[in-house]
Amino acid sequence: MQKNKTKIILVEPQMGENIGAAARVMSNFDLEELRIVNPRDSWPNEKAVAMAASGAYILENAKIFDTLEEAVTDVKYIIATGATDRDMEKQVITSYNIGDNLHENMAILFGCEKTGLSNEQLTYADVVLNIPTGKNHSLNLAQAVAVVAYELSKLQDLDKISYLEAENAPKSDLNNMLVHMYRVLDEKGYYKNPRMRPTMEQNLRTLFTKAKLTEQEIRTLRGIISLLEKGY
Amino acid sequence: MQKNKTKIILVEPQMGENIGAAARVMSNFDLEELRIVNPRDSWPNEKAVAMAASGAYILENAKIFDTLEEAVTDVKYIIATGATDRDMEKQVITSYNIGDNLHENMAILFGCEKTGLSNEQLTYADVVLNIPTGKNHSLNLAQAVAVVAYELSKLQDLDKISYLEAENAPKSDLNNMLVHMYRVLDEKGYYKNPRMRPTMEQNLRTLFTKAKLTEQEIRTLRGIISLLEKGY
Repeated sequence: MQKNKTKIILVEPQMGENIGAAARVMSNFDLEELRIVNPRDSWPNEKAVAMAASGAYILENAKIFDTLEEAVTDVKYIIATGATDRDMEKQVITSYNIGDNLHENMAILFGCEKTGLSNEQLTYADVVLNIPTGKNHSLNLAQAVAVVAYELSKLQDLDKISYLEAENAPKSDLNNMLVHMYRVLDEKGYYKNPRMRPTMEQNLRTLFTKAKLTEQEIRTLRGIISLLEKGY
Repeated sequence: MQKNKTKIILVEPQMGENIGAAARVMSNFDLEELRIVNPRDSWPNEKAVAMAASGAYILENAKIFDTLEEAVTDVKYIIATGATDRDMEKQVITSYNIGDNLHENMAILFGCEKTGLSNEQLTYADVVLNIPTGKNHSLNLAQAVAVVAYELSKLQDLDKISYLEAENAPKSDLNNMLVHMYRVLDEKGYYKNPRMRPTMEQNLRTLFTKAKLTEQEIRTLRGIISLLEKGY
């Protein structure tokens, strides 16, 4: 089985045990790259190492980031795992058909144990992946990683894996554009009610994520933002 | 999603955490019946309850048995999970095609964390199920349960579940016959080298398990054993 280059990103995980169990099952199914955003407990984490067992090398190579934004700079396609009952402008797929949504430079996000990914974190996603369950939707974090890792390795085993080329720019380009846009909009008095600013920014991220902007398109948009900035 | 009546049997599990995590993921994927053979730690187990979270009702209803034999009396088809590198007279399937092997009155066995199912425990199996992994074969017990439970629920969701009718007798009939046979063979001096007795008994269990004996066939064989017993 070839190593799968998809990145697993745990966003604000709480329990070291779950991080360790996730690393172990990644190792079982030949996923290599673990990224962790702002873990609750100190790092490195003894409980994580104990649970990782034979997957300890995944933990040792894990990269830690302060923010989700920093964790996805080089990523081009983001799958966010989560429930689907929220009202969002996002395409939803299930773990059953993850094979139709594989991209190069892809990352899969898993939210914290208690609440999953926040609405703000979900705005980063190109697509939301739901694991179908019975009435009890509350999957343990590491079990969710297990199911996704298993599905990916199954596709690979059955030679049904084929990565779509992501023609959009890396997420860092998108993010830099958004940060620029948010600032200019603020300067120009776009946020009439400051309390609405976070929501409006999230809507903008969702909208421009959905657009799968190329590097050229981002340059075009930044030109327009600069125009606005200069007050033409 | 309809409740799946397949029984999950943990054979000599060591860690309460794993029992709890297995119960939770069974609940996620609508498996209801958990049986536990000779757990290492005392029962009920606090760590199991903590890990089970929303799946606590599965633990509460779990049945505890002293031996594997007692745990499968009403079962008609046994799938044993395990690695496939052992030399055995058993059909091996993978989790990918578990759908072709579903039976009524079915149980799926998971061995202890450290060593999996022993060769003696494997003799009870109608078929051995392997979860394909990369180089690191060592799946956490609860993760193995997760993968199997997920596959079963997926089949059910996709309406691809259909149970084969098991025409063979319940395992209790088979077992009673074997116990009878072992005793008579002993009385008749069949076990020339007493140290070989366990192995020979295991070979007999494997052979007669493979035969999928009906109740009528078991009656026939017991007649022959009785003849032997009476010294005709």
